[in-house]
Amino acid sequence: MRTERLSKSLEDAGLDAYIVTREPNIFYYTGSISGGVLIIAPDTSPLLFTSRLNLYIAQDNAQGCNVEPYTKKDKDEKILERLNQIAPEKIGFDELSLGEYKALEDKLGDVKLKDNPDLVWAMRRVKDASEQKFMKRAGELSDIGMEAIREFLAEGVREHEVAAAAANAMRREGAGDISFPFIVASGPRSAYPHAGVSERKIRRGDFVTIDMGATYRRYCSDITRTFIVGSPSEKQRTIYETVLEAKEAALPEIRESAKGIDVDRIARDIITKAGYGEDFIHGLGHGVGLEVHEPPSLSKRSGDTLAVGNVVSNEPGIYIKGFGGVRIEDTVLVTSSGPERLTNFDTGLDAMRV
Amino acid sequence: MRTERLSKSLEDAGLDAYIVTREPNIFYYTGSISGGVLIIAPDTSPLLFTSRLNLYIAQDNAQGCNVEPYTKKDKDEKILERLNQIAPEKIGFDELSLGEYKALEDKLGDVKLKDNPDLVWAMRRVKDASEQKFMKRAGELSDIGMEAIREFLAEGVREHEVAAAAANAMRREGAGDISFPFIVASGPRSAYPHAGVSERKIRRGDFVTIDMGATYRRYCSDITRTFIVGSPSEKQRTIYETVLEAKEAALPEIRESAKGIDVDRIARDIITKAGYGEDFIHGLGHGVGLEVHEPPSLSKRSGDTLAVGNVVSNEPGIYIKGFGGVRIEDTVLVTSSGPERLTNFDTGLDAMRV
Repeated sequence: MRTERLSKSLEDAGLDAYIVTREPNIFYYTGSISGGVLIIAPDTSPLLFTSRLNLYIAQDNAQGCNVEPYTKKDKDEKILERLNQIAPEKIGFDELSLGEYKALEDKLGDVKLKDNPDLVWAMRRVKDASEQKFMKRAGELSDIGMEAIREFLAEGVREHEVAAAAANAMRREGAGDISFPFIVASGPRSAYPHAGVSERKIRRGDFVTIDMGATYRRYCSDITRTFIVGSPSEKQRTIYETVLEAKEAALPEIRESAKGIDVDRIARDIITKAGYGEDFIHGLGHGVGLEVHEPPSLSKRSGDTLAVGNVVSNEPGIYIKGFGGVRIEDTVLVTSSGPERLTNFDTGLDAMRV
Repeated sequence: MRTERLSKSLEDAGLDAYIVTREPNIFYYTGSISGGVLIIAPDTSPLLFTSRLNLYIAQDNAQGCNVEPYTKKDKDEKILERLNQIAPEKIGFDELSLGEYKALEDKLGDVKLKDNPDLVWAMRRVKDASEQKFMKRAGELSDIGMEAIREFLAEGVREHEVAAAAANAMRREGAGDISFPFIVASGPRSAYPHAGVSERKIRRGDFVTIDMGATYRRYCSDITRTFIVGSPSEKQRTIYETVLEAKEAALPEIRESAKGIDVDRIARDIITKAGYGEDFIHGLGHGVGLEVHEPPSLSKRSGDTLAVGNVVSNEPGIYIKGFGGVRIEDTVLVTSSGPERLTNFDTGLDAMRV
């Protein structure tokens, strides 16, 4: 039971109790999408407080914990009452808003409150067998979405129609949702890493960068491909091939005990040597799981070391203002026998021509 | 210019400067989806700091402010430098995480930091003409999505396929995105107000509650309808008609100077008289705009008073554990001549039979 593991980790962290408030964390520990406030302490049953609105779904789905409802009026009181029963000296938490923190601090007197999300991340970043299964399916669903885009994409269609084609294909095949708002960045907009979706009409000669993902059982995939409408110019070809080379060079390095900073460097060096170092304006990758951006990170400033069960994105890019850009991204699982791509859509330039 | 209006409101709030960090607020004031940190003070140009990653899109799209990039490394330093130039005694902000707040408080010495999101909400809750136009289109798009569902919904289809049909129709017609993750709650799951989407197969006799919305130019719509597969039972009919009556009774009360608590009571009284008061387990409505949940609120504990330009949801519901539930919701604009529904899909029980 995950709540038991969290409870057992408290002593080493110097904590007597732990408050979980972030929705994905509540889901991770209980299987309930109700949200709420989960209170965990050694030698007591985990207790999930949830709003009246989400009480039934929590009662029917939450596992390994008792469930109690709160209203806006009695929420603080009920949580405080529970904490007083436990009588901790030091309480950890995953996240509290400034207002929640101040209110609790005020009422708890001498009890210390400690911001310690890492306790949860230490567990969540290592995906177990069932999580890996869901993430593989999420990856397959995003490949299906990308295939729908390749079939649909053409001169004259609009960005939002491209998103429609992929979202429909992924949902039809079983995606619970998209894992984050689509990015469909065509022409000069492909120079924006986070471009959203516009109503722009796709033109001949455009790069079209699609960044998207599906969820399956709430686990995310994250894939990016850059298509080219028509034939690439010499400069487009060079940029594309450079990004692809960087991605392919980084892939075998995504393995147990590799440092995030080193994996990033492998890709960055290739792009820098090609003369585009200043145009690779983000880190190489981030963790993926119940959320689409999680630890660990692959970047210039990462302090993370990879472990078996980690899932990260591998997404080098080159962005040139006014001209356009390319990003190619896979979601990758670290296994004991090396990296395993969870997204497998084509990457070769010829396969990306529409 | 919206930034100017915010700047002018600072004095009355006893503030010398204001920090905007929430993405929808950055978009509201600058038109940029880059996010970042916007610093506003009288007699200075608004300055938007944004990450290197989002610099180009901010440079191309942000209006009424200067734009400067930051990295993770120099972000705090740059913001502090700007604040020191302004030399305020009291700084308001819309939202800071606990960590951001503590770091700033630490470095600002005697300068006071004040959590004051209401200054922004006072502006955002009153939609201007262009915002109203976008929200009308968002409402039309959600009606189109609901029509796609009525055509698709049948015994044997699965919840996620229902979501696919609607999302595809809305995106194809020009929705930038869905305004929040779909709710498709069939059979006993319709007793969960926030049910998400599952792979459950729809059965004859099911209530199927769909809660969804489209965005248009980033403005949200929010609509809920409950369909019935086949013929309603006597109990289903009673529940449906009660919820519909409550919604229709509340609609004319959604007008200038009405109190949120009073509008809620009109609907709640009808449901209570029908014997289902304990089963209406949420407030009647919430504001809608760039976000799908905003001020003002229509609820038992609301302190809000409606004004022309407000947009709110009107969504009574009855939820019975193990049996199912009904919610019917429109997005409604307050105009000087009364309420105007922005979502107009059918509500009569006969029209909801598939």
